[in-house]
Amino acid sequence: MNQIEAPRPRFAQIADILRDRIRRGVHAPGSPLPSEPELSREFDVSRVTINRAVGVLRSEGLVQVRRGRGAFVRSVPVITRVATRRHGARDAGRGAYDVELRRLGLDPSWTASVERVPASEQTAELLNVEVGCELVVRRRRYFANELPVQIADTYLSSELAEKAGVTEENTGPGGTYSRLADVGRGPVHFTEDVTCRGATSGEARFLEIEPNQPVFEILFVASDKENRPVAVTRHVMPGHQWRLRYDWTDEPEGQTE
Amino acid sequence: MNQIEAPRPRFAQIADILRDRIRRGVHAPGSPLPSEPELSREFDVSRVTINRAVGVLRSEGLVQVRRGRGAFVRSVPVITRVATRRHGARDAGRGAYDVELRRLGLDPSWTASVERVPASEQTAELLNVEVGCELVVRRRRYFANELPVQIADTYLSSELAEKAGVTEENTGPGGTYSRLADVGRGPVHFTEDVTCRGATSGEARFLEIEPNQPVFEILFVASDKENRPVAVTRHVMPGHQWRLRYDWTDEPEGQTE
Repeated sequence: MNQIEAPRPRFAQIADILRDRIRRGVHAPGSPLPSEPELSREFDVSRVTINRAVGVLRSEGLVQVRRGRGAFVRSVPVITRVATRRHGARDAGRGAYDVELRRLGLDPSWTASVERVPASEQTAELLNVEVGCELVVRRRRYFANELPVQIADTYLSSELAEKAGVTEENTGPGGTYSRLADVGRGPVHFTEDVTCRGATSGEARFLEIEPNQPVFEILFVASDKENRPVAVTRHVMPGHQWRLRYDWTDEPEGQTE
Repeated sequence: MNQIEAPRPRFAQIADILRDRIRRGVHAPGSPLPSEPELSREFDVSRVTINRAVGVLRSEGLVQVRRGRGAFVRSVPVITRVATRRHGARDAGRGAYDVELRRLGLDPSWTASVERVPASEQTAELLNVEVGCELVVRRRRYFANELPVQIADTYLSSELAEKAGVTEENTGPGGTYSRLADVGRGPVHFTEDVTCRGATSGEARFLEIEPNQPVFEILFVASDKENRPVAVTRHVMPGHQWRLRYDWTDEPEGQTE
């Protein structure tokens, strides 16, 4: 595409310069940006222009504005989530999230709660149960160095959750999937459907991002060796915070569908 | 999370109602929404409120505003891209994109052009070549029923592109990967890194979406049987238009990392 671009507006040029400074570490992770009056003097533009430039970095997730304290460089780098290796990581006795975070030198933490809810149309279809039948939902909220980075809600049929003993917050070593394996329903086949959309206001509030900022939504379905779905997880993650990696090998001889 | 929600503003409530009508087919794909004056009378609110409500649907990709003609329901449904089966689809003699689109009854088309460019830092690293060395880039632009839905640029080293004979727009049956296979460098191992972010203004212009509307960026690396990278493709796709599907089987015994 060799179209002529319009001249970049001043706020966009200033955003480019500040972004470059953040990337080069001139403004280090966790540190404050210079104040609006300082930036307005440096670039010889109005504070309104500076405010728009900072707004660009905010919507990209590079900068977080703390009320009354100004703009700060976000302190958590992009986290790579290698979907196809998460199961193995868990079996090695540590949670996949734990492995992802410690690889980057980040401190992982999470909260968990359990509820019973009726199956929505979507969840019912994915779990192959009746709409409205009782499900156990395990709600987890993940943090990296205390910054909220992920919402993950796992749904199982109440019947299976009770049989596997995963109706309490603590599910023991290896977590939910190990308990499912204990009762012969361990997940073996996995499907992820990934969408990307603007955050809802509730998600934005928890994740401390702007409403409508891009988020990943992952619908993760785990099925047992007979291909019966056992658990569905809905992940919501800020787009700027995560990179999703998938890898596979595909011999052309064997796999034409 | 049992937080009390603030009452939803009127524009958001109206967006909810219009979204529901679109989902139920009251406003069919491709058809115009009622005009702003009509909606403003129906809901007894100002045109400014209607305009904000339509803005929400626009940013979700449900509605497209055509200058001077008003708002229309988008006519192309969400397309599912099953990454792990795209290779097989191609080998069966039809392009993966062709298969994805015809499954939904949509009409696929694309344009292609070829250029030579120096390797950027990122591409050089992924292709395992020197920064600045000459690459062949095959630029494709994909359409569904004439709506632009994907940008895909594939980079190969000039040396390999010449050896495989993929320096012209037409690469013959099976495309680039079949030509690579012909010279013993057929791709077998695949990695996709998926990010989600706001569209740049250039991307937004081509894809006919709003700047900053969420897009997927996929960096797809194809490697041969000796794990040497042969081609890197950067895909940019509107978030509302695509669902990325990945599936895999993972026996816990074999795959602890």
